[in-house]
Amino acid sequence: MLTLYHYWSSVCSQKVRLCLCEKGVDWESRHVDLFKFEHLEPGYMKLNPNGVVPTIEHDGRVLIESSVIIEYLDEIFPAPALAPTDAYGRAQMRLWIRKSDEMAHPGVTTASYRVRHKPRHAGFSKEELLAQAARQPTAAKRARAARQIKHGVPEEVENAAYESLGLLLDQMEAALGNGPWLLGAEYSLADIALAPYVNRIEVLDRPEMVSAAERPRLADWWQRLQDREAFKEAFSFANPNPGDPIAR
Amino acid sequence: MLTLYHYWSSVCSQKVRLCLCEKGVDWESRHVDLFKFEHLEPGYMKLNPNGVVPTIEHDGRVLIESSVIIEYLDEIFPAPALAPTDAYGRAQMRLWIRKSDEMAHPGVTTASYRVRHKPRHAGFSKEELLAQAARQPTAAKRARAARQIKHGVPEEVENAAYESLGLLLDQMEAALGNGPWLLGAEYSLADIALAPYVNRIEVLDRPEMVSAAERPRLADWWQRLQDREAFKEAFSFANPNPGDPIAR
Repeated sequence: MLTLYHYWSSVCSQKVRLCLCEKGVDWESRHVDLFKFEHLEPGYMKLNPNGVVPTIEHDGRVLIESSVIIEYLDEIFPAPALAPTDAYGRAQMRLWIRKSDEMAHPGVTTASYRVRHKPRHAGFSKEELLAQAARQPTAAKRARAARQIKHGVPEEVENAAYESLGLLLDQMEAALGNGPWLLGAEYSLADIALAPYVNRIEVLDRPEMVSAAERPRLADWWQRLQDREAFKEAFSFANPNPGDPIAR
Repeated sequence: MLTLYHYWSSVCSQKVRLCLCEKGVDWESRHVDLFKFEHLEPGYMKLNPNGVVPTIEHDGRVLIESSVIIEYLDEIFPAPALAPTDAYGRAQMRLWIRKSDEMAHPGVTTASYRVRHKPRHAGFSKEELLAQAARQPTAAKRARAARQIKHGVPEEVENAAYESLGLLLDQMEAALGNGPWLLGAEYSLADIALAPYVNRIEVLDRPEMVSAAERPRLADWWQRLQDREAFKEAFSFANPNPGDPIAR
């Protein structure tokens, strides 16, 4: 039995759903609404002390961190294989997964604030939002959340985030010269780890960054990825909140 | 044939040396002097575009990122095994390795600036240091390096780094309740990934954080780790720079 705690449009949740759908594994959904702050509830934070989605429970054991989860799923459900069979290939795969965590994630989190996160805060007063920020589990996260609520994300910080995302997309474009997938012939967890971030960049303010005009190989990769049945299934988990201004 | 590009006291280099010594693998040393800025030379950055140590070359293939390297080494040189045999155990191991990258590394990097990095900059003018900062490979790294050279690390930033390190050490102390090692009975890459950071904290300004008085299980773990032959070998790579004020 596998239970997934996730939020419909969270990039890390999409990453795990995409892996589960590629594997054809059945899972039970527990939707955790980030904009009702359900990820900061004590019950959920007992499962995930970082107060983030996703979390899985598999055969009664809890596992957190999307990048760790997808590698676990690939080992537990070996078919179809989503990792190279040789150690050097697996190392290259893990380098891409790291890029998804270290470059893509902070970049899209910062770039998402103004156009996606702030509009969803409209129903709360500043005091309510600051009270939620104070429930974050570490001093660094509390400070960051409070700073964003008070001051937003400064334009130069947003620009730096897009610059960092651009570097990553350039690296993907270069790697896809030996495609069709990031590691070459075989589709892998490397593609799965990056796909949700490319999806997000496309719905933010600079969709041209993933266009055929700017990065043709990346745009081709992205189209082929969206054509996969597993992608359609994983990304069909729709916004369950009728009042939410965000549709994708 | 395995070549290690490393710096004697870099935590990430120590991590890889510790893994190599546990495996009893022969390696050829290429010392990259961070305080002569050799990591920013074009020749080295061809191997490691991030401009950091360590890098390995194994059978003619290059691999970067210490956390990816140690997992690769464990797969290539399977004895003695340094990873659990079950997928859930390996996932737990990877969560600790992530903590070494996400909590320990930024924490000790920030906390090391005033007491270790700045004294080693004494032989350079501010202009020379800023010129080196400008060679960093990304805008974010260039900005961070320039900011530190101009303004140092503010006290509240250093305090926040120690607070984050304290959280991690608390998590280690709790896990070691089911010790003797971080994953339980077996010594693993989890211990190897964290050991260099505990070593570093001990030589910074708050060694009491890893003392028996504050964290008895951690202190016991740390002593047992230092008693290992592989640790002694890996950490015996001495400072080759006669004028360097830092000895450990």
